[in-house]
Amino acid sequence: MSIDLESLYRDLHRHPELSFQETRTAGVIVRHLTELGLEVEEGVGRTGVVTVVHGSAPGEGPVVWLRADMDALPVEERTGLDYASTARGVDPSGTEVPVMHACGHDMHVAALLGAVERLVATREEWSGTVVAVFQPAEEYGAGSRAMISDGVLERYPKADIVLGQHVTPLPAGIVGVRPGTQMAASDGLSVVLHGRGGHGSRPQATIDPVVMAAATVMRLQTIVSRETDPRDVAVVTVGSIHAGLKNNIIPAEAKLELSLRYPDDEARDRVLEKVERIVRAEAMASGAEQTPTISTDHTLPPTINDEDATARVTAAFERSFGQDSVVDPGMFTGSEDVSWFARDAGAPLVFWFWGGVDPQAYAEAEAAGTLERDIPTNHSPFFAPVLQPTLSRGVDNLVVAAREFLG
Amino acid sequence: MSIDLESLYRDLHRHPELSFQETRTAGVIVRHLTELGLEVEEGVGRTGVVTVVHGSAPGEGPVVWLRADMDALPVEERTGLDYASTARGVDPSGTEVPVMHACGHDMHVAALLGAVERLVATREEWSGTVVAVFQPAEEYGAGSRAMISDGVLERYPKADIVLGQHVTPLPAGIVGVRPGTQMAASDGLSVVLHGRGGHGSRPQATIDPVVMAAATVMRLQTIVSRETDPRDVAVVTVGSIHAGLKNNIIPAEAKLELSLRYPDDEARDRVLEKVERIVRAEAMASGAEQTPTISTDHTLPPTINDEDATARVTAAFERSFGQDSVVDPGMFTGSEDVSWFARDAGAPLVFWFWGGVDPQAYAEAEAAGTLERDIPTNHSPFFAPVLQPTLSRGVDNLVVAAREFLG
Amino acid sequence: MSIDLESLYRDLHRHPELSFQETRTAGVIVRHLTELGLEVEEGVGRTGVVTVVHGSAPGEGPVVWLRADMDALPVEERTGLDYASTARGVDPSGTEVPVMHACGHDMHVAALLGAVERLVATREEWSGTVVAVFQPAEEYGAGSRAMISDGVLERYPKADIVLGQHVTPLPAGIVGVRPGTQMAASDGLSVVLHGRGGHGSRPQATIDPVVMAAATVMRLQTIVSRETDPRDVAVVTVGSIHAGLKNNIIPAEAKLELSLRYPDDEARDRVLEKVERIVRAEAMASGAEQTPTISTDHTLPPTINDEDATARVTAAFERSFGQDSVVDPGMFTGSEDVSWFARDAGAPLVFWFWGGVDPQAYAEAEAAGTLERDIPTNHSPFFAPVLQPTLSRGVDNLVVAAREFLG
Amino acid sequence: MSIDLESLYRDLHRHPELSFQETRTAGVIVRHLTELGLEVEEGVGRTGVVTVVHGSAPGEGPVVWLRADMDALPVEERTGLDYASTARGVDPSGTEVPVMHACGHDMHVAALLGAVERLVATREEWSGTVVAVFQPAEEYGAGSRAMISDGVLERYPKADIVLGQHVTPLPAGIVGVRPGTQMAASDGLSVVLHGRGGHGSRPQATIDPVVMAAATVMRLQTIVSRETDPRDVAVVTVGSIHAGLKNNIIPAEAKLELSLRYPDDEARDRVLEKVERIVRAEAMASGAEQTPTISTDHTLPPTINDEDATARVTAAFERSFGQDSVVDPGMFTGSEDVSWFARDAGAPLVFWFWGGVDPQAYAEAEAAGTLERDIPTNHSPFFAPVLQPTLSRGVDNLVVAAREFLG
Repeated sequence: MSIDLESLYRDLHRHPELSFQETRTAGVIVRHLTELGLEVEEGVGRTGVVTVVHGSAPGEGPVVWLRADMDALPVEERTGLDYASTARGVDPSGTEVPVMHACGHDMHVAALLGAVERLVATREEWSGTVVAVFQPAEEYGAGSRAMISDGVLERYPKADIVLGQHVTPLPAGIVGVRPGTQMAASDGLSVVLHGRGGHGSRPQATIDPVVMAAATVMRLQTIVSRETDPRDVAVVTVGSIHAGLKNNIIPAEAKLELSLRYPDDEARDRVLEKVERIVRAEAMASGAEQTPTISTDHTLPPTINDEDATARVTAAFERSFGQDSVVDPGMFTGSEDVSWFARDAGAPLVFWFWGGVDPQAYAEAEAAGTLERDIPTNHSPFFAPVLQPTLSRGVDNLVVAAREFLG
Repeated sequence: MSIDLESLYRDLHRHPELSFQETRTAGVIVRHLTELGLEVEEGVGRTGVVTVVHGSAPGEGPVVWLRADMDALPVEERTGLDYASTARGVDPSGTEVPVMHACGHDMHVAALLGAVERLVATREEWSGTVVAVFQPAEEYGAGSRAMISDGVLERYPKADIVLGQHVTPLPAGIVGVRPGTQMAASDGLSVVLHGRGGHGSRPQATIDPVVMAAATVMRLQTIVSRETDPRDVAVVTVGSIHAGLKNNIIPAEAKLELSLRYPDDEARDRVLEKVERIVRAEAMASGAEQTPTISTDHTLPPTINDEDATARVTAAFERSFGQDSVVDPGMFTGSEDVSWFARDAGAPLVFWFWGGVDPQAYAEAEAAGTLERDIPTNHSPFFAPVLQPTLSRGVDNLVVAAREFLG
Repeated sequence: MSIDLESLYRDLHRHPELSFQETRTAGVIVRHLTELGLEVEEGVGRTGVVTVVHGSAPGEGPVVWLRADMDALPVEERTGLDYASTARGVDPSGTEVPVMHACGHDMHVAALLGAVERLVATREEWSGTVVAVFQPAEEYGAGSRAMISDGVLERYPKADIVLGQHVTPLPAGIVGVRPGTQMAASDGLSVVLHGRGGHGSRPQATIDPVVMAAATVMRLQTIVSRETDPRDVAVVTVGSIHAGLKNNIIPAEAKLELSLRYPDDEARDRVLEKVERIVRAEAMASGAEQTPTISTDHTLPPTINDEDATARVTAAFERSFGQDSVVDPGMFTGSEDVSWFARDAGAPLVFWFWGGVDPQAYAEAEAAGTLERDIPTNHSPFFAPVLQPTLSRGVDNLVVAAREFLG
Repeated sequence: MSIDLESLYRDLHRHPELSFQETRTAGVIVRHLTELGLEVEEGVGRTGVVTVVHGSAPGEGPVVWLRADMDALPVEERTGLDYASTARGVDPSGTEVPVMHACGHDMHVAALLGAVERLVATREEWSGTVVAVFQPAEEYGAGSRAMISDGVLERYPKADIVLGQHVTPLPAGIVGVRPGTQMAASDGLSVVLHGRGGHGSRPQATIDPVVMAAATVMRLQTIVSRETDPRDVAVVTVGSIHAGLKNNIIPAEAKLELSLRYPDDEARDRVLEKVERIVRAEAMASGAEQTPTISTDHTLPPTINDEDATARVTAAFERSFGQDSVVDPGMFTGSEDVSWFARDAGAPLVFWFWGGVDPQAYAEAEAAGTLERDIPTNHSPFFAPVLQPTLSRGVDNLVVAAREFLG
C-alpha cells in the first residue's frame, strides 16, 4: 500500500483548519499512519498527532524528531486552483472568517507523511528511532508549547536531534539552510487603547480612540526607522486595528495587534520597552484617563540552527541534490515555535526551507526584478506551491536529513 | 383606559432594536394605538408605523405631522438601571452586537404615544388632523426616506406643519428651540483603502493598509484644524476603523467609516472634496496600486426650523412652561432625517430638544465645570434620562406645540 | 499746510520697519505732527509716539484716545507695486529677513496723521481732548504694554474712550464693527523640544528632534479637530519650525513657535493645558531625556467692543457713510493688543475694520466663490490695499468716531 | 626637525573651518610640508592641498595615494576641552554658525602629516611614490569631486592603490577594516514644500507648509519601517527642517534636508523613488498648488574595499599591532567621498577605521550596555578622541598600510 500523496495534499489544501481546530487534518493523518501499521496518539496538545517509527534495532541508535505543523490561516484564497479552499471557520473572537492554507502547512503534513512511509518501508536499512510530530497551532506560536505541556517530551523517546522544514518562495528544487539564527524571535502583542466614547458630532465630549490608535501606529514606525541600528533586524507590524461599530459613534476603545521580530533576546527587551513607551505616551497625548492595556499573546524564540548538526545536514543535502541546489537563504524575519521542542529537550535543531515556486517563473521574475511583486509569499491569498517537485522534494529532504543521523 | 407610559417606556428601554429591525417596538406601538381605537398601518418604510387622529371637524383645519423615531444603537449599556438593556442584535455586516437605547428614541416613542392618547381624549377641543409617524432607522439616516419611498406622503393627509423633538442632556423641565439651523447636515462615508497583504515579518513585500489608514486618519484632522474657518462648524469623525485578523498577517485592506457635519450644502461640498483629496493622496503616499473606494452611506440635510412656525411654538412653550423653561440651545452638530418629511411636503418644520437630566445633578456639574465629563451624552453607554418629569414633559411638548396649530 | 497723505503712505510702505525698530517711521510721524504745531513725545515704549490735540475749551470735555500701530512684518513683498518694499531687517534672533507692511499698519499711521490734521483744523468745532497714540510692536503683542510700562497712562489725560481701526480685505468703502468680542484672545508660545544630536547615518544613537517635532505638529491638530466644540472658535497654528543645519547631522533640538486663538480666558486655559499635555507626551513618546521648554512670548486679551459706545459709533458711521456701508463683520480670529489701553484705563473700547479691496475685484471674487484665493489677506506677501478711497476713509472713520464723543 | 603633532592637532581642533573654507588649515599643512622640503600645491579643488613623496628610486615602484579630509562641522562644541573650539563661521546660506571638528578630520590631517614626515624620513627604505591628498569638503560630499574636476588625477602620478582612514568611537588602539562594502552610499536631498502663506489666525486661507512638512516627515519613516527588507540597510534622516519666521504668520514654504543611506545603487534607486512618491503625495494631501521642489545636493558612492588589497592591509595591521587589535567593524551606515579618487583612477581602495576612545571608558560603557549613550559619536558636540595613542596610531596606520605596497 502506498499513500497517494498528491491527492492527499490537494485534499488537505481544500480543507484547511484554523489553529487548534485541526481535527479533520488530524483524522486524515491518523488514518494514513494507521494504514502504515503504526501506533498513533491523537489529541496531543489539543489537536496534535504523534507516532513513532523504530529502525532495525529497536531501542538502539539515535532518536530523531521530525516535526510538521498542520494549521491554516484566516485568509481568503484567491489562487484560482481547482483545489482552492472555500472553507470558513470561526476565529477565537467568534467571528466567521475565510480559511486557507496560505503558509503551506498542508505541504509540510503531506511531506512528513511521505517521509514516514519511506522510513517505514526502509526501516531495515537504518537504526534508531523516529518520532513524527504533527503539531497544531504554529500560527498562534502556541502549538509546540501545548504539546510540551501535554507531556510529549516525557511520553516519547528523548530527541537527539530535532528536524523541521518550511516551504517557501524559492525555486522548487532548491533547499536553503544556514547555521546560526535561521529565523527571528517574535512576540505577538495585544494593545487596548482606552478612550471615552460618545456621539460622532461631539468629539469634544470624548477621548477619540481612533485618533489615538492612528497616532500610535504612526509613532510605532519610528522604532524601526529611528531607534534601531540600520544594520540590525527589527520589525514592528500592526497587523490588526479595530475600533468602532458605526460612523457616528466615537467608540470607547481601540484594539491593536502587533507582531514584533528581532534576532535575539536583547533586541527583544529593547523593542518591547520602546513599544510600551510609545503606546503609553500616545495615550497621554490624547488625555486618556486610563493607561493602555498591553498583553503578550505569544513569544517565539529565535530559531537557531546548531552549527555541527547543520553542517552535517547541509553536506547530506549537497550529496543528494547537488551543490547548486543548496543555498544559504539568509536569516528569515519570520518566526517559528519548533525551537521549543529542541530547547526543552536540550537537543540540537536543524530547520530548513525548501522551494515551491516554478523555477522558470522564478527566473523570469528575478531577471525582471519583480520577485516581490510577482511571486506570492507565505500568508498571501495567492500563495500556491507548485505541486511537484515540491512535494517529492519535501519527502526527500526529511528522509535525507533523518538518515544522516540514523545511518 | 389609559396607557401606563412609564412601564411602557421601561419595556421599550429593556428591548431596544437596531435600525430597520424595530418589529417588537412597532408591535408595542400598534397594540396601544389600536386600544385607543385608532386605525394603524404597520410596515411603512419596512418597520414604520402611522396613524391618524381627527379633531372635532373631520377634514377641516390644519394637518399636523408629529414624528418620533424608534431605533436603538449598537452600544453596550452601562447605566446600571434595573431596566437596563442586555439585548444583542445583528448589525448589517452580520456581526452580533450589543444594543441599547443610547439616544433616547424609546422616550420619543413613549412621548408620542402619550400625546396621541391625550389628543384623542381631547379631540372635541380641537380641529384639524394629526398624523402620528413612528419612524424607523433614524440612526442610519435612512428611515424617513424609506417611509417616503413607501408613499407615506401620498397616502396620508398633506402636512401643513411637521413637528418633532429629541431628548437631550439639558435639565429636565427645560425645552430648547431656535429658529434657523437647529442641527447640522451630515454625511456618512465608507472608505476602503486597498493595500497588498502578506506576512507580518515581510512588510517590504506588502502595501500596509494599517499604516495607510493611520496616516489618513491623522491627515483628516487637518480639514477641521487648518482648512475650515475657525468660526464655522465642521466635524470630521472617523467612527470606525477595521483592518486585519491577526497580528502576523498584514491585511490587504482597511475600512474607515466617517461621519461628517456641516451647517449647509456649500460647506458639505467643500469638506467632501477635501476628504476625497486626502484619502486619495494618502493612498498614493503608500504606493497603493488601487485608488481607495469611497461611498456615501447616507446624507442628512440640515435641520432648519421655520422662522414663523418656530416663533409660534416658542411662544406656546413659554406660555405653558414659563419663560425660564425655554432656551435657545444653539445649533447642534448632530443631525436628523426628520427634515425630509417637511422638505418633500413643502411644509415648515419645528424641531426642538427637551431635557432629561436631573436638574440638581446638572446644576452641580455646571458649577464644577464638569458638564462634559459628568453628564452622559446621547450615544454614551451611560445615557439615561430621568424618567420623570422627562416623560410627562415629552408628552406636554407635543400636545402644546400641536395645539398651537390645531387650536 | 496740508499733509500729502498719499505720498506719505507710499513712503511708509516703501520703508517698513520691524517691531520696536520703527525709528524712521517715528521720525516721519514726528516731523508731520510738529509741522501741525503740536508737541510730540517720541520714544514712548521704546519707539512709540504720542501727541495731544485740544479742542475749543482746553481741559473740558471728554478725552478720546486714537491709536494706530506702526510696525511691519518679516515678509518678502510680492505685490509688484511701484512703491513695493525691498527692505530688509534683522529679527530678534539676529537673522536678516525681508520686511514688508503686510498688515497695513502704514495705512493706520497715515490715516491717524490725516485725522489729527483734520481735528487740528476743526478744533474750534469740538471740545475735549484727543490723545493720538502711535504704537510700536503690535505684531509682537508687546507694544501697548511697553507704552503702558513707560507711563503713558499716567503722563497723558485719562481716556474716556479708546478708538482704533484696522484695514482689512473688505471692499473699500465698507466699515465693519460689532458690539462684544470683535477679535480673539491670543498667546504666542515658544516650544523647544530637546532630543539628542548625532550623525545622520546613526539615528539609533540619537533622539531625533525633527521626528519629535513632526509628531507634535500632527498631534496639535487634534486640539481643534477633536477637543474643541465645533461651534467654538479655536486656532492652533505652528507658524515656525526650525531644527538642524545640515542634512547629515541630526540636531539636538527643534524649536516651534505657536500662535493660539480663543474667544475668552476660559478657552485659553483649556487650550494651553492641551498644548502642554501634547508637547510633553510627544517628547515622552520619543524617549526624550529632558522635558520640552514651553514659554509664553506674549498674551493678547480678547478685543471686546463696549456695547453702548459701539452703538454710538455704528450710528455715527451709518449717518456719515450710509447704512449699506456699515456691516457686522463677525468676530475675527486675529488678535490685537489695543485692548490694554482701554482695560488698564478702565475705559470703553471701540475697534473697527475698514475695507481696502477694490470693490469690483471683491464683487467678482465673491461671485466666483474665490474670495479666499483671489483677495490677499493680511500678512500675505500680496497684501496691498487700494490707495483710495481706503486712505481717505481711514481718516474719515477716525474723525467721525472721535467727533461722536467730542461733539 | 620634527613636527610637534600634538600641538598641531590641538591647534587644528581650536580652529575648525567649514567645508571649502579650510584656508587656515591648508596654510598650516603647507607650512609643515614645506618645512619637510616638499613641493606643495595649494588650492586644489578650491582649498585642497597635494604633495608628492618619492621613495628611493624615483619613478619606480607603485603609486600610493594617502588621503585625509580637512573640514569641520556647524556644531557647537561642548567637550569642555581646554583646546575646545569657540569658532564661528558662515554657512552657504549666509547664516553664522558655530564650528567644531566634530568628526575628527583634524586628527586625519595631523595623522597624515605625521605619516608623510615618517615616509620622508625613511624614503631610502622604500620605493615608489606617495601622493598625499588633503581633501576639502568631505562633509558636503563634494571635495573629492572638486579636486578631480580641478585635474588632480591628471596632474599627479596615477594611483595603484588609494588608502584612507577615519577616527571612530572604537577603543584607542583598535583598527577596524573589512573587505567589501565598508560604508554606505548616500544622497543629500533638499526638498522645498510649497504652500500658501497668510495670517496665523486664518489657516483656512492658507496651505500650511508646516503641517505639510510634519506629515511628510512622519510618512518618510515608513520607507525604512515598512518598505525596506528588515535585513537590508537603509536610512532616511531629515536632518534639517525650516519654515516660518514668526508664530502668527503661516509661511509660504517649508524646507527639508534629507540624508539617505543605502548599501548599493539598486537600493538607492528604490529609496529615491519612494522619497519622491511620498513628498509629492503629501503635498497633494495638503492641496498644494505647486509640486514640491526636490534637488540632490550630493551623491556619495558606497565605500567598497578591494578584497585583495584589504587582505594585505589587514595582514600588515595584524603583524604590526597584534591580531587582537584588528577587528571587522561591520559595514558603517556613514558615507565618504574618498571612493571617487579610486573609482575614477580605476584603482583599488582600502579605507579603515581606528579607535579614539579611552579603552577603559569604552570597556565600562560596554559592560554597562551604555555605549550608545556614554560614548560620544562622530558629529556629536561631545566628540573628542583621546589625544594619545589615537594620534600616534593614526600615523602608524598610514605608514604600515602604505609600506605594505611600497616595500
